[in-house]
Parts: sequence; structure tokens; C-alpha cells
Amino acid sequence: MADSIFHFGAGKADGSKDMRDLLGGKGANLAEMSSLGIPVPPGFTITTAVCNAYAITDALPQGFTQELQQAVAVLEGAMQRSFGDTTSPLLVSVRSGAKFSMPGMMDTVLNLGLNSQTVKSLAAASNNERFAYDSYRRFIQMYANVVRGVDTRPMEELLTAVKKKSGVKTDADLSATQMRDLAGEFLQIYADVLGEPFPEDPWEQLLGAIKAVFQSWSGRRAKVYRRLHNIPDSLGTACNIQCMVFGNLGNDSATGVAFTRNPSTGARHIYGEYLINAQGEDVVAGIRTPQPIRQADAAGSGVVSMEESMPALFKELTTVCAKLERHYVDMQDVEFTIEAGKLWLLQTRNGKRTAEAALKIASDLVKENIIDKKTALMRVQPDQLEQLLHPTIDPNFKRTVLVKGLAASPGAGSGRVTFDADEAEKRSSNGEKVILVREETSPEDIHGMYAAVGILTSTGGLTSHAAVVARGMGKPCIVGCNAIHVDSKKQEFATASTTVKDGDLITIDGSSGEVMLGEAPLIEAQLDENLLQFLQWSDQHRRLRVRANADTPQDAQRARELGAEGIGLCRTEHMFFDENRIALVRKMILVEKDADREEILQKLLGEQRQDFVEIFKAMSGLPVTIRLLDPPLHEFLPHDAEGVSFLSKKLDFDSEWLRSRINKLTEFNPMLGHRGCRLGITFPQIYDMQVQAIVEAACEVEAKAKGSVLPEIMIPLVGAAEEFHWLQARAEKICKEVLAKSRVQVSCLIGTMIEIPRAALTAGEIAEHAQFFSFGTNDLTQTALGMSRDDAGKFLDRYIEIGIYKRDPFSVLDQPGIGRLVRLACEEGRAARGDLKLGICGEHGGDPSSVRFFHEVGLDYVSCSTFRVPVARLAAAQAGIAASP
Amino acid sequence: MADSIFHFGAGKADGSKDMRDLLGGKGANLAEMSSLGIPVPPGFTITTAVCNAYAITDALPQGFTQELQQAVAVLEGAMQRSFGDTTSPLLVSVRSGAKFSMPGMMDTVLNLGLNSQTVKSLAAASNNERFAYDSYRRFIQMYANVVRGVDTRPMEELLTAVKKKSGVKTDADLSATQMRDLAGEFLQIYADVLGEPFPEDPWEQLLGAIKAVFQSWSGRRAKVYRRLHNIPDSLGTACNIQCMVFGNLGNDSATGVAFTRNPSTGARHIYGEYLINAQGEDVVAGIRTPQPIRQADAAGSGVVSMEESMPALFKELTTVCAKLERHYVDMQDVEFTIEAGKLWLLQTRNGKRTAEAALKIASDLVKENIIDKKTALMRVQPDQLEQLLHPTIDPNFKRTVLVKGLAASPGAGSGRVTFDADEAEKRSSNGEKVILVREETSPEDIHGMYAAVGILTSTGGLTSHAAVVARGMGKPCIVGCNAIHVDSKKQEFATASTTVKDGDLITIDGSSGEVMLGEAPLIEAQLDENLLQFLQWSDQHRRLRVRANADTPQDAQRARELGAEGIGLCRTEHMFFDENRIALVRKMILVEKDADREEILQKLLGEQRQDFVEIFKAMSGLPVTIRLLDPPLHEFLPHDAEGVSFLSKKLDFDSEWLRSRINKLTEFNPMLGHRGCRLGITFPQIYDMQVQAIVEAACEVEAKAKGSVLPEIMIPLVGAAEEFHWLQARAEKICKEVLAKSRVQVSCLIGTMIEIPRAALTAGEIAEHAQFFSFGTNDLTQTALGMSRDDAGKFLDRYIEIGIYKRDPFSVLDQPGIGRLVRLACEEGRAARGDLKLGICGEHGGDPSSVRFFHEVGLDYVSCSTFRVPVARLAAAQAGIAASP
Repeated sequence: MADSIFHFGAGKADGSKDMRDLLGGKGANLAEMSSLGIPVPPGFTITTAVCNAYAITDALPQGFTQELQQAVAVLEGAMQRSFGDTTSPLLVSVRSGAKFSMPGMMDTVLNLGLNSQTVKSLAAASNNERFAYDSYRRFIQMYANVVRGVDTRPMEELLTAVKKKSGVKTDADLSATQMRDLAGEFLQIYADVLGEPFPEDPWEQLLGAIKAVFQSWSGRRAKVYRRLHNIPDSLGTACNIQCMVFGNLGNDSATGVAFTRNPSTGARHIYGEYLINAQGEDVVAGIRTPQPIRQADAAGSGVVSMEESMPALFKELTTVCAKLERHYVDMQDVEFTIEAGKLWLLQTRNGKRTAEAALKIASDLVKENIIDKKTALMRVQPDQLEQLLHPTIDPNFKRTVLVKGLAASPGAGSGRVTFDADEAEKRSSNGEKVILVREETSPEDIHGMYAAVGILTSTGGLTSHAAVVARGMGKPCIVGCNAIHVDSKKQEFATASTTVKDGDLITIDGSSGEVMLGEAPLIEAQLDENLLQFLQWSDQHRRLRVRANADTPQDAQRARELGAEGIGLCRTEHMFFDENRIALVRKMILVEKDADREEILQKLLGEQRQDFVEIFKAMSGLPVTIRLLDPPLHEFLPHDAEGVSFLSKKLDFDSEWLRSRINKLTEFNPMLGHRGCRLGITFPQIYDMQVQAIVEAACEVEAKAKGSVLPEIMIPLVGAAEEFHWLQARAEKICKEVLAKSRVQVSCLIGTMIEIPRAALTAGEIAEHAQFFSFGTNDLTQTALGMSRDDAGKFLDRYIEIGIYKRDPFSVLDQPGIGRLVRLACEEGRAARGDLKLGICGEHGGDPSSVRFFHEVGLDYVSCSTFRVPVARLAAAQAGIAASP
Repeated sequence: MADSIFHFGAGKADGSKDMRDLLGGKGANLAEMSSLGIPVPPGFTITTAVCNAYAITDALPQGFTQELQQAVAVLEGAMQRSFGDTTSPLLVSVRSGAKFSMPGMMDTVLNLGLNSQTVKSLAAASNNERFAYDSYRRFIQMYANVVRGVDTRPMEELLTAVKKKSGVKTDADLSATQMRDLAGEFLQIYADVLGEPFPEDPWEQLLGAIKAVFQSWSGRRAKVYRRLHNIPDSLGTACNIQCMVFGNLGNDSATGVAFTRNPSTGARHIYGEYLINAQGEDVVAGIRTPQPIRQADAAGSGVVSMEESMPALFKELTTVCAKLERHYVDMQDVEFTIEAGKLWLLQTRNGKRTAEAALKIASDLVKENIIDKKTALMRVQPDQLEQLLHPTIDPNFKRTVLVKGLAASPGAGSGRVTFDADEAEKRSSNGEKVILVREETSPEDIHGMYAAVGILTSTGGLTSHAAVVARGMGKPCIVGCNAIHVDSKKQEFATASTTVKDGDLITIDGSSGEVMLGEAPLIEAQLDENLLQFLQWSDQHRRLRVRANADTPQDAQRARELGAEGIGLCRTEHMFFDENRIALVRKMILVEKDADREEILQKLLGEQRQDFVEIFKAMSGLPVTIRLLDPPLHEFLPHDAEGVSFLSKKLDFDSEWLRSRINKLTEFNPMLGHRGCRLGITFPQIYDMQVQAIVEAACEVEAKAKGSVLPEIMIPLVGAAEEFHWLQARAEKICKEVLAKSRVQVSCLIGTMIEIPRAALTAGEIAEHAQFFSFGTNDLTQTALGMSRDDAGKFLDRYIEIGIYKRDPFSVLDQPGIGRLVRLACEEGRAARGDLKLGICGEHGGDPSSVRFFHEVGLDYVSCSTFRVPVARLAAAQAGIAASP
């Protein structure tokens, strides 16, 4: 274990910011700041190598304790204090720090080294007994909770009770005696719960805390976070031991967090919160509502900003922030403590930000000539862009605001109130929209936050857990809404005038912080300038075209506005489900004679043609890929007794006959059944009608605007070249006939979806006939993984949990399996037909990592759902830049 | 069209037996016989090239008529007769002849050239008016039927009526006047039906007949036959024009068919049937029951054999047959005609034979030093062997024979009587066993014969349509059962004493010709000596091992007797369905707590162990691959209201709760659902129990007989290396624990099925862990083709009909698709693990063409259903010989 401990502090360091793998993000940046001459309390980092060794053996490596003692001796020397010494005790913080920031996920212990003796020395040394016992009771509580897993709510309740009894509002108002008494009671709770006394030996404390940090890496909440953020379990966390500096030493002390730019809007000024006479955890945990750092952010609120109360320190902080941002070439998120008028930096890292802020910061950095456009493009996570397109409340709607909190994450959402994360997940999976309401959130709530359409908390600031996590998820969120009282037990929250119960409908506006009763009308997002410019830059750096999956003229129009360069998938079955047509469609399916079927199809022809006319108009000048009928016919029919009875009356069919006919159409495995082009082979009249409608519509639109129509007819579920060729021949015949009748020239491509493995395996043969391939990666994933999307819920979570699939293969393309088929089909298809057009129209077309793969294998375009078009544009640019930086 | 016409006759020929592609089998062999100096009526063959040209243009090629005229002129010269001449007319036969023999499929016209004038010349020339008009009325009927598609049953009825009126039994007993009158009436029927007179012009007749031959190639019945026998549509048929020789010239004339050895038993003597004063069609069509050629076959029957009635000609025929057999090095099936005491050969071809005969003939030819063993092995179609294993009637059963006919195809079968081929197919597809009973069968009945378990006809001989086709299909068949009267309209058949109605149960013994009422007890076939020897030879020439799929000790025992070298697939779910266990299994599935589940599994453990003990004992010394539980759990549960209600009482579950629990387990696509190793991942206790049972059983058996147990644990439905590895680790742990407790050494392989495409695509990774692969080609076909076997019935027939798949991919491996995955997995699996054991356990393991593929890609073994084991052994040998002849 040569690499187990790295020192930093006093203007020098063993490590640097480039050693994140070994030191974690926090440790690497503490080293870097130290080297930069920024004031950092001295300390050392225990590396991730130790964590990984611990994960395997469940014990600290041999000889580690000696190394640790030597490292602590260095700190003792620097501080002229001694660990466990009763006269001049050294106190330390123990913090985790993984390679990637995992806010709230890992555990921290402050004030370690205190015990019944050293607390007295601290009181004497600081000449502040209240401070010493405040620190002590904090330490006991944190240690109990983090290191020993004790439920510390009774301690919180004691604290609240004391404040209430004394008639004071904040912890800072409690006296030294009260703090000492609390510490005593906390020790008693600890002993009662664990059946053993609180450890007096600082070394026992220290080793316990280090182990707790390493154990927390393998804890459930850390695993959930990593799974959600695609962080490998194998990284491990480092552990940082640092001399304590105290924000709770009095009114010339404080603690806070700051962003070098506004993380919500991206505005170019320092932004953050602080608390006087407090320790760092108070700000992040949202226990007290902190005050703004910048005067402008406090304007009119009556609270005192740091700029106002500590102007020199504010200036110093601003200077440090500017230095850090310039050094790291990105917006930073820093933690600081002011101990008796001296500023200490405890952490810096690239700051999380909303999509809006990410765009603005990246754009501004380009304008400030700090980064180039390519770098800017790589700075924004494509997934984030979608949140800019989330709905807002209709501005014409007259809002009746129930209550207002802090606007923590933009966008608006309406849903039913729930107070429990599990319940939120459950209801959401039943298709209900829910808003999760909590006093504050914790990492245990993440699954519920994920499931909710919005989050509302009564305490905490803009950097509280709820706020940070919601922004990352792109969910509307309001925090610190002090005016409501949340009673989780009663399942309700109350304002002065109103009580809102579990299941009641509310609307939250995460951009304004307003909470309203009932459901508000939401409207589509407007595209802001930064986004448009950013997407323009993206377009300059991508080879991959981006199309949308759209079935209606409205969808097509919206997709075009978002930059879609065509429609990659227009599903015709939705047109069949139109309520004015469904009866006719059902009749067409049910009749037994081909002649009757053809007669009905003739009636549907005109309507289908009109569908296509409107879509071609909306996409004038751009290609439109229309998929011929795909779902099994029984999907159009009712299956419940009531529906069958209604239909039998409506169509004048004998109900017994109808029931038996529907039963006959029912399938064991519809996914693998009589659908896709198998319908086209067995009921050729249906495809004939659709092809006729497409080509007639194309001629009609082309006649009015030359060059406007680029139709592409897509035959679904092909598995064999012969199958495609048989259908292609019919379609081409109809095409020719229609074109001969009209006097318009329209060039209509005929291609296929590659969505069953055999199609990929015989792509070379298919490409001898097909003019384009569009990978239907949804069905390809289902068939090649042998996994029904509708049924996988029963086991897929478990599969991801134990790492069989790293991500849900229906969201993120499974590259070793499905990707291999895609690559093979591309290569052999192109070998057979040099100008074969290649695209993808599964859900994966809007997933950034999948888009990168599609770029690499040489597709011409990706097609995705409308709101993912900007995501795909940026992802395509990043793929292009990554391939040739 | 340089290659349009080839002449033969009078000891020389343009063609030879090696020109079957161009001349068809019949034409090539006519040329060959002619060159050998065997008496063949002179003629010429119009090539398959002309047929193929006709198929495309629907017309005979330009200039063809002139060529035809020149060719006919050659015949005129040879015969000193003239086509259409009124004094000395040339008459010809027109026969089809494709590359592969298609009995009864193609059409023949005899006596062509006759008209109202030439018939008189024929009467004068032959000095036999009766003969001339007999020939004429035959010609009219054949031409009307074959060339013009006229329903000629009214003509048959007229003939029958005349015979009845005259009180005679056979056509031969009718007078010249009666024949002339019949001819006149036939002409009238022709004119009435078609609205035009019968063509008098022989050239019009000839061209019409040639076109009819070519058209019949594309007719439905020919297509059905080709599909069943895997003959490409592109081959085309040739058309043979030959001078007529007459078997109906009087009592010194005859016609017949002969086999050079007995086609039913393989016995080494001429075997066949003939009719005096008849034309060839009379024998084949089964209109008159013919007499045996050999005296031994007539013994005691009272009929006169050819050996007796025409001893010199019999001897000549025997000599010709011996010459032909020696020349063709195989048993021949010949057609001959005797015209006024002179023998003419009309056809020779390799004779169709029963499996028993095929084996005996091939073995005898080896013993006679005519062919070597390899050649013998290649002579027998592996598929045929299965029929030797078909059940026979228990010899202890006291038979009450209703009636007796000719034993046309061996084996016994019981089923319900049906008189209609469509009905037979319908009932069979509903799972009913049927016996098709007809006066005689025709090519239109083939689908019904295929569906039936046996065939019974009242007329026709051992070479009639029913007999030939049934032997090819390996179905029990009795023909010529004159003692029954079949009334298709009334849907019944009657003997003197009994009437059997549609739906009544009967048993037929195709080996004895006996028909019995009711169902007789059937027993397994005994392995005969020829078969055993043949399979021994096979074993010397195969590299591929053959295992069986067997789930019970009885199956295993039987498989071993048939030569299985192990069990390739032992399904454990069948054990779960055992009626004594199913309630416990259901409870195990339904309980919600893991602890409850484990408790029940402990109860099942002992029973599972005993299952495996018995199977290991049965397969002592041979490997046994046991597949862990595979089907989705809901398959074990009742789904109908009655079953649910019964179960809720039995297990004391609330019925509402039970219903909802079962509903929750139901899946949209069970094939792609929660099954296979997904059960092992989500309910690891189930697999744990199974692994424990397997290893404990192995130890128990091994302890008693060292070296007897070779268990292979097979994990199904693996799609990812991680998935396999997770389960393998658990299994290995249990394995070790059990082995540690016992003191026995058992080496237990752990491997997987490759049955979803992703497994094949990541085979290299999986092989890093798995010790063997067994290709589950059933499911691999379903997933890689995206085609549910249970639902494909709705479209697969159509797919095969239009040629998208040449054969049912569930019976014959789809090599371009599934085969590619198999090959890839073999290559990459072996690259990762040199000693990876490779096998296949899908249905395809018993299909000869698939076995050949598996040999080529280097599998170690195939595993198939028990009764296919001999088939696979021979197929494996043929694959080996084909690869290194």
C-alpha cells in the first residue's frame, strides 16, 4: 500500500487535480487548491486503493494503522496540537470523496477527536464553552448516526424541545450549559441504543469513521445513486482527514457554499448561501434556512447578506472564486468556513447546474474567450436539454398562489400530493402523476423523487438535497417553503388557511417557487436564444442527421421547430385508431372475404391519403419515412365482453361469431406473431391501399410545390430478403401505376426496418433490394435479448441491480449484443449497396451514449421522439467532436 | 433452342442416364436403356429447357413446331407409319418425366393420333376392331381429362353401366361394338362439356398434350408434392413422345410394373404385377386389381401369375431386370408392355422402397460385393428409419379381423375413420388420430394422407397411388381391400356383415393387411438385425455423437437401446408436473415469503433427487445433461375459473387473492418473459434446490458404481456472460458443499443453452465461464426469426408456399439465419475455450439436413427425440461420408 496516504496544506501538496482516480474529486481538488496557495486546512487523503482493498477484505490493510499514525503526526506538527491530547487537542473532519461528485450520498464526521476530556480543553483553548459543547454534541450525533447507524431523531427532538422550552429559535441562541446538557443526554442515548459507551479514544473514533466512509461506498443509497448516474462500483471512494476549522466559533465565524456563477440561470456572478456561527452541515442539510452571500440576492427579503455583514471576507471569497474558475476553466461549487474572521476553503468542484445555466455558462465562456465552441459543446449533458422543453404554466392562466417557496429547479408540474417516496413510486408506476411533498428529502427518497413529476419541501435552501437532486433530474422543485407545515403521519400539509391532504391535486412552478391548488394549464416551453445558438453550434459539428418520430401533422410541425431534419418513423396504425375510423377498421379486419375487405379498404384509402398529405405539407422539403401497418390485427379489436357486445351491435355481427373470431386472432406471443410485414404477405390488400395512399398524397403535394415531397416507404418486421422483395415488387407496381396516372415526378424510396435478428444477419441480401434500413432497436432488443419489454419488469430491475446489464437495455443500447447486430448489418448492407441509407428509429435514437455509437458505426441519421430532437442534435455533435477532437 | 429434342430407340440414343437435368429421369433412362440394347419403343424427349421456357412465356418457343414435325418424321420413318395417316397411322404416347420421380403427379396421354378416321385404319391394321375402339375410348377419356380438365366420371359411369347391363366383370369382356358406342358417347360428353368437338387433327392433339404436360408442372398437386419432398420449382419437367405399343391387343398382350427386388421387404427376387389385355394405366390407377408376376406371390390365391401364363416372357423380363439392376447398381422399378408376345420396356428408375427394404437391399448389395458400405449408407434416407420404429400390434392381442386387404406399407395404427382428405387434415390438427378410408386415393388426397395415421383403400394394388405414397410417408397402409364397399356420400364403409361409420374407431395393420374394429394395443417396434448392422456401419463413419432428449428413466432406457450415447436434454419441469407434486409446486410458486418457498423446496428436494438417481442409473457411464427449470411459473398454475377454485380449496388460499396472484404472473409474451435462468436469478432458491438434488443424486449413484455418473448442469436462456457467471458461482458453491459432505468424486460440468441471439453474439464471453454450449435451436429460431411457433400457423404456410422460407424453419434449420448464429457461437466459443463441448438439443437434432450442418460446423453431438436417434446416427454418418467421401 505505497499509495495509501497523500498530504496537502500550507501551499503544497503530494497530489493534484489530475489524480481523481486515486484521491477522489475532493481530495484531488484540496491538493490542487493547496498548491495554488488558496487557504485550505491541512490534511491528508486516504486513497481509493485503500477503499477497494477494504471492500474485498472487509478490513483495513496491514500496516495501515501505522501509516495513519504517521500522517496524523504530520498534522499535529503543523497545528502544534496533539490528537487526543487533553490540553491542546487536535480535532479533525473525516469526509468521503469519490471520483465523481455524489452529493449527500457519502457521510461526513466533524469535530472528531472530542471526548469528555478534550471538550474541556477545547472550551479552554477557545475560551468559548458554548462552542466547545456545541461541537461536542454535533460530533456525538454525527458519529452515532454515520459510524454506528443509530437513529438520531430522538437527539433532534431533544434539541427542538430545549429550544422550545427556552423560547429561542435557533441553535445559536442556546447557552453553553444547554449544549453541555444536550451532549450528556446524547451520550446516554448512544449508550442506551448500542449497549456500550461512546468511544473516548480518538484513535478508535478515527478508525471507526474511516471504516464508515468506506462502508458507505457499498451502502444501498450510494449504489442507487451510482446506478442512476452510471458510475462504476469499482471506483471506490477516498477519505479525507482534515484539521477542523470552526464556523461555529462565534459571530465572526460562518460556513457556506458558493457557486462562481448562478447554477440556476448561469448569470455571471458569485451565488451562494452562508450561515453565521454554524458548521457546514447546517447549510447542506437544510436544517436552518441560510442567508444569501450576495447583496443583490437578499434584496427586499430583510435578511443580511455576507456581502453586507462581512464585506472584506466577501471580497476575498470573490477573488478566490474567480481564481478557481479561471484555473479549472469551469464554474465551481465551493464550500468554505470562516473561523474567527479567517476564510478557509474546504472544497471546490465543477458545479452542478440547470440546463439553462449550463447553456449560458458554456456560451459565456466562449464569449469570454476562455473555451472554444467544441469545448463548450462537450460541457453540456445532452440529456439536460430536454428539461428546457418541459412545460410551463400558461401565462394567461390567472394563478391563485397558495404559498411560495424557493424556486429550486425550473419547469412546472401538476400531480397528486404524496408524502412518501415508496408511495410516489407505486402510484407513478400505476400511471398517476404525483408531487412528492416532504419536510426535507434525503438520499432514501431518491426513487420517489425520480417517480414524481415535482418535489416540494418545507425546509432547506437552494443547495439542499432536494434542490440539487431535482435539478439533476430536470424535475420542477420548490424548497424552503417555510409557510407550510408538513405532517407526514397525518398525510397532509397545512398553510395558515388551508390543509392539503394526500391525493389532493396541486401544481408547482419550479421557476417561480409558487404552489397552487388544483391543476393548472401547462404550455410547451419556448426555445430560448442560448439554446438555439447552442444547437446551431451543434449542427456545425455533427455528421449525423436528426429526425423525429412523429405520427401527426402537429407532431411533425413541432419536430421541425425543434430542428428535426425529417421524419424517421411515421406510424400508420395511430391513424387506424382514429375514433372516426376504428369501426371501419374493425370491420375490415373481421370480414372473411377478400372482396369485402378490399371494399372497406377503398373507403379508408381517402382518409389515409389525407393523413399523408398533411404530414408531407408539414415536412415540405424533408424526407418522411412512413411505416406500413405493424401491430397484430387483434390489437384493434375489443377483448372485454362489453366491447365485444357493443361492436357486435354496431357492425351487426352475431356476437357469438364475433367472440370466436376475436379469440381466433388472439396470440400466445403477439410480439412474435402475425404482425408487421406478415400482415402484408397474408393480407396484401392492406399494404396495397397504404402504398397507394402514400404515393397519391405525395403526387398531390408535389404537384403544388415542386421538390417538396421525399417519401420513404418502410416495410416493418422483415426477416428475409425474399419477404422484402415480394412486398417491394407489389409496392413498386402500385407506385408506377399511380405515378403514371398523375403527371408528377416523385422519387419514392422503399426500405425496411431491421428489427429482428435474422434481418441483421441477412442484411447483405436484403440490401440487394432495399434502398434504406432503419434500425428498429426497440424490437431488435426484445428479440435479440429474448426479452419482452412488457414483461421484463418482473426481473429487469434485479438484472441491473446485480450488474448483468449495466443499464436498462430498452433505454441505452446494449452495444455488445444489439450493437453488434447493428454494426454487422451496416457493414454487410453497405457492402451490398454502397448508397444504402442507414438510420435508427427506436427509443435509443434520443439517448446520448447510443447516439455516439450510431455515429461510430456510420448511420446517416437518428430518429427520436420530438422532445429528444435537441438532445440528439447535441449528442450527435459530441459524437462528432469525440471522434475527431 | 438447340437442346429441345433428344431421340432414342433401336439400340441407340442422343442422351444418357447422366442427363437427368435436361431429359428428366424417364427420358434419361429411356435413352440409357435404348443404348443398352433393351427393347424400348422409339421416341424422343422434349427437354426441361422447353418446359422452363413455357413456364415463363406461357407459349412453346418459336420454331418449336417445325422441330417437333421433324422429330415425328423420324418416328414415322422408323415405324413405317405416318402421323394422322388414314391408312397406316402412327400413334404415340405423351408422358411427363421430371428429374425426380413424382409418382401420380404428372399426366400421361396414350394412343394419341387416333380420330374418327385413324381408329378405323387401326382396326384394319390390327385386324382387331375391339382393340381399336378400346384404345380410342381410352384416348378420348384421357385427353378430355388431362389436356382439357374435363370431369370424366360420367364416362366411367357409362363404362360401369355397360358392363353391368352386359353382365360382364371386366373391360376386357366388352365387345367391339360396345367399345365403339362408348367412344361415340365419350365424344358427345366432351363436346357437351366444352362446347366444341373433340380435335380430329393429330397435330392439334399432340401440341395440346405437350402443353398439358408442361402446365401440370405448375399445377397445385405437383407443387404440393414438390414442397413435401423439397424439390425446387425451377427444375421443370421433360416430355416424352414415344411410339405406342399395345398391351390391350389381345390375350397375348399385357402390361405391368416390376421391381427388381421386393420393395416392401427387400427380398432378392423380381416382384410386380401385370394385367393381360390392358394398357399401363390400368395397373397404376388401381381400376382393376392386377395379378402377380412371380408364381410364389400368387401361391394359393387362385390367380394366375405371369411366370405361369407367359413363362418365356417372364424369363426375358427377369433377365432384363437383372441387367438393369446391375447397370444402375440399385434396385429398379420398371414398366413394361407386352404387345402380341413381344416385350417392351417403357421405363426404369430406382425403385421406391420401405425402410425395411431399403436396409435389406443396401445390406445385400454390400454382401453381393456390388457396392461398398459407404455407398450403402448413402442409399438409405435417414428419415425412413423412423418408420421401422413405429408401433406394431401387441402379438398377445387376440385379433378379431374384420376384413383383409393388401399389406401396402408396414406398421400399425388406430384412429377414427374419415372419408375426406380435408376432414382428415382438420381433425388431425385438432389432435385427433384419423384413418383415411377411400375407394382409391389420388394426388388431391396427399394432405389428408399426410395427416392420417393410416390409409385404407378398397381398390388398387401394391403399386397404386395409395401404396406408393404411404410407403414414402412411412404410414401404415392397406390397399385393394375388395371386401369393403366404400360409400363416401353416406360417409361409411361396409363389409358383408358390418357397417363402419365416419368417426368410428378402427385399427389397421399395414404389415398384415388386416383391418380391425376398435383400438388395438400397440407395442414398440423391435430392432431388426439389418437395422442394427446398418447402424453399426453408421457408427463407424460418424464423428458426431448422438444423444437423446429424455425426461424419464423409461425414456432414457429406450434411448439407450436405440443407441443414444447420452442424454442431451433432460427437462426438469416435467418432474414438477408430476401429479403427486404439482400441488406442492403450485404452493411454492404462490407463497410470497422466501422462507416459505424454501421450506417447500426442501420438501421437493428428495423427490427431485430420486428422479435424477433413476436417470443416472439408466444412463450409467454416459453423460446426462440436466436443464434447470425453464418455463414461466404461470405455466404451472390453473387459469380457468374451475381450476382456480379447486386450487384455492386444496391449498386453503383465498380465491380472490389467488386469482389476482395468478393474474399478476400472467405475461404478454411468455416466450420472452420471466423464465429460464431469469427464474434462477429472481428465485435463486429454486435452482439451488435443483443443483443440490442433481449433485446429491450423482454422489449416491457414483458411490455404488464408480465412474458411472457424468452429470452436466445446463442453465437455460442465458443472454449474457454475467448472468451465467452469477448462477454458475452459486451452483459451484452448492456442488462443492455436497461433494465435501459425501466422500465421492464426481466431476460435474456446468454449461448453458445458446437459445437467444445475444447468447450467440456474446458466446466468446460466455465460454470464458461455461464448460459446454447446447444450442436450443427451437427457441433460437423463435427469437432470431421473431416468430412464435405457437402463432406462426397463421402465416407460415403462406411463407413456405411463396418461397420466403423453403422449409418450415422449426423442422429444418434455417442455415442463413440461425445457422449463422450457431456457426459464430461455435467459432467464438471455441476460440475462448479450446475444449468447449458443443451440442444441440432442439428438434433439428433429428433432421438429416440439419445434422449435416451441425457436423460441418464442428459440434460434438446432436441430441434428438428418442425415436429419431437411429435417424440421427445414419444422418451423422452420411454427413461424415459427404465431408470425406
